[in-house]
Amino acid sequence: MAQIRDVARRAGVSPATVSRAFSDPAKLSKDTLARVLAAATDLKYKPSSLAQLFREKRTNTVLVMVPDIANVFFARVVSGIERGAVESKLNLVVSDTGDDMDIERVGIEMVQTYRADGLIQLGERPLNELLPNEEHAQIPFVQAISADPRGAYPTVGIDDRSSSAMMARHLIAQGHRRIGVIAGLQNRLVTQERLKGIKDAIADAGLDFDDTIVEYAPYSMGGGEQAAQRLLSRARHLTALFCMSDEIAIGAIRAAHDLGYDLPGDLSISGFDNIEFGKYCTPPLTTVMQPAEKIGEVAMALMSDMLTGQDMPVVHEMLPTELVIRSSVQNICGE
Amino acid sequence: MAQIRDVARRAGVSPATVSRAFSDPAKLSKDTLARVLAAATDLKYKPSSLAQLFREKRTNTVLVMVPDIANVFFARVVSGIERGAVESKLNLVVSDTGDDMDIERVGIEMVQTYRADGLIQLGERPLNELLPNEEHAQIPFVQAISADPRGAYPTVGIDDRSSSAMMARHLIAQGHRRIGVIAGLQNRLVTQERLKGIKDAIADAGLDFDDTIVEYAPYSMGGGEQAAQRLLSRARHLTALFCMSDEIAIGAIRAAHDLGYDLPGDLSISGFDNIEFGKYCTPPLTTVMQPAEKIGEVAMALMSDMLTGQDMPVVHEMLPTELVIRSSVQNICGE
Repeated sequence: MAQIRDVARRAGVSPATVSRAFSDPAKLSKDTLARVLAAATDLKYKPSSLAQLFREKRTNTVLVMVPDIANVFFARVVSGIERGAVESKLNLVVSDTGDDMDIERVGIEMVQTYRADGLIQLGERPLNELLPNEEHAQIPFVQAISADPRGAYPTVGIDDRSSSAMMARHLIAQGHRRIGVIAGLQNRLVTQERLKGIKDAIADAGLDFDDTIVEYAPYSMGGGEQAAQRLLSRARHLTALFCMSDEIAIGAIRAAHDLGYDLPGDLSISGFDNIEFGKYCTPPLTTVMQPAEKIGEVAMALMSDMLTGQDMPVVHEMLPTELVIRSSVQNICGE
Repeated sequence: MAQIRDVARRAGVSPATVSRAFSDPAKLSKDTLARVLAAATDLKYKPSSLAQLFREKRTNTVLVMVPDIANVFFARVVSGIERGAVESKLNLVVSDTGDDMDIERVGIEMVQTYRADGLIQLGERPLNELLPNEEHAQIPFVQAISADPRGAYPTVGIDDRSSSAMMARHLIAQGHRRIGVIAGLQNRLVTQERLKGIKDAIADAGLDFDDTIVEYAPYSMGGGEQAAQRLLSRARHLTALFCMSDEIAIGAIRAAHDLGYDLPGDLSISGFDNIEFGKYCTPPLTTVMQPAEKIGEVAMALMSDMLTGQDMPVVHEMLPTELVIRSSVQNICGE
């Protein structure tokens, strides 16, 4: 299909003049206008003209796709992206996709139709599941949180496996041996990586991993509550629960309270993410700090670099995590 | 400024043909194209042509402006809006404005430049503070949550005053007389309305309202924690705290725990909103249920009606609230 350059060459004008012929014809002489239009007609220069105009008049808008806007952790990542957007003087629009592929495709269409310049996805669905192969390279795309290094686009997140191992080692160091796991959704890369980390730590300690004391749950309070009810009802001997998110852990705390456990005396519970509510739990939650805002800022910085056309390698940034020790995990070495 | 209709009339073609001359010139004969372009030039039909095209090609996109996307209550309203958007087959983009007027103005600009068809604002800033008078009528605008009936546009929310009175009456009925108030930000309409409701209930009970046991705070856990520390440190005789949001209440619970209060025995604490975390607090939070998702759905339905051009009166919908009784408020009538 003819590009704006082709029309410009044929009409003997600059591409800017071609653009002006469509966006602001009154600025051109009738003669020039007629020449441009004739060239456009001859070359069948078509609807993309509109898109082209919008491409030239950049929207300076970045679209962020979030699987669940009501998830507090995602919301903090979005806050970081916002902060980055202000610095980069970019506007931001956020779409709650409900983790629905069709809605994610609408987001991609927004970029393709030049209503947004680029796309930051929080989540782990690879771009090539959303777009046929030949098209992805044209979409400025950054994936955040689940830093899957298999994608051909920049990613930013944490090392889920080693961060999870760090927490599991902490539980072991506090004397825990019978550690149940409330994992997230089984089909998620992030769940699989965190489970590998737990297994790493248990193997390093010379212990055996017991597959029967893992329950999978949605990454939510309700999910954690139900999974903990199931697990604690059939495995009364556990001394600790490794929960794969703070929301899961908060649900597990409620389930344990309801089953009559005295926390943390009877049962230690750990979380993951370090959301604000964890600090306000009873008992306050020991967890892994993910630098949520920082992840968002880096994602926006990567996007901003892409949009300003900097030729950069595809990077996969892994930001450091930290153990946050509060009182929901107890040392039982003396018991 | 010339409209597409004027150009069409002068060129002796339909407005659709004028539109096509700019968006898809190859579809027209050279003769028609030249006639349209000449008419456009004569009439100085200008950049809005681009906007005009976009107006005709509706974006089917609604922009939602949220003061704080990390606020769990707002996030639930947004979820309801999303649900409504799916039903209305509209796309949604969400902008976290940080309650910043300049960022809200960017949102309005998105509608003015036809990158979105309409605007739903969560919050209480009146549209006429964002736009000079003559322009507002042209922006499809719905305000949700703070149902300020002074605006000349549809709103949806709750009756903050009577809902707040309902909770205050509950505290009084449970025997509480020395009720401290952790209010939200003092300059907010919502704060003022809820305070009026408390005063209504106290007056109805024949009691006197004590202004000295009100503390104002940001609507956040940290805000609630600090305000409760201040209030409880100087007013040790209180038997209950009326908190103007669940997040404030969750912070107040932590402050009370830290000051050595046994909850709810020593102090009853009530919230407002009914966010999910309230159920997982210790003690679980007695609160006022705001139908957050429903508010979002109604907001989107109002917007959808506006966009489909239905001639409707400006409505101010107030949705019913409910008392949610858990264990953070204790009956002390026997004491």
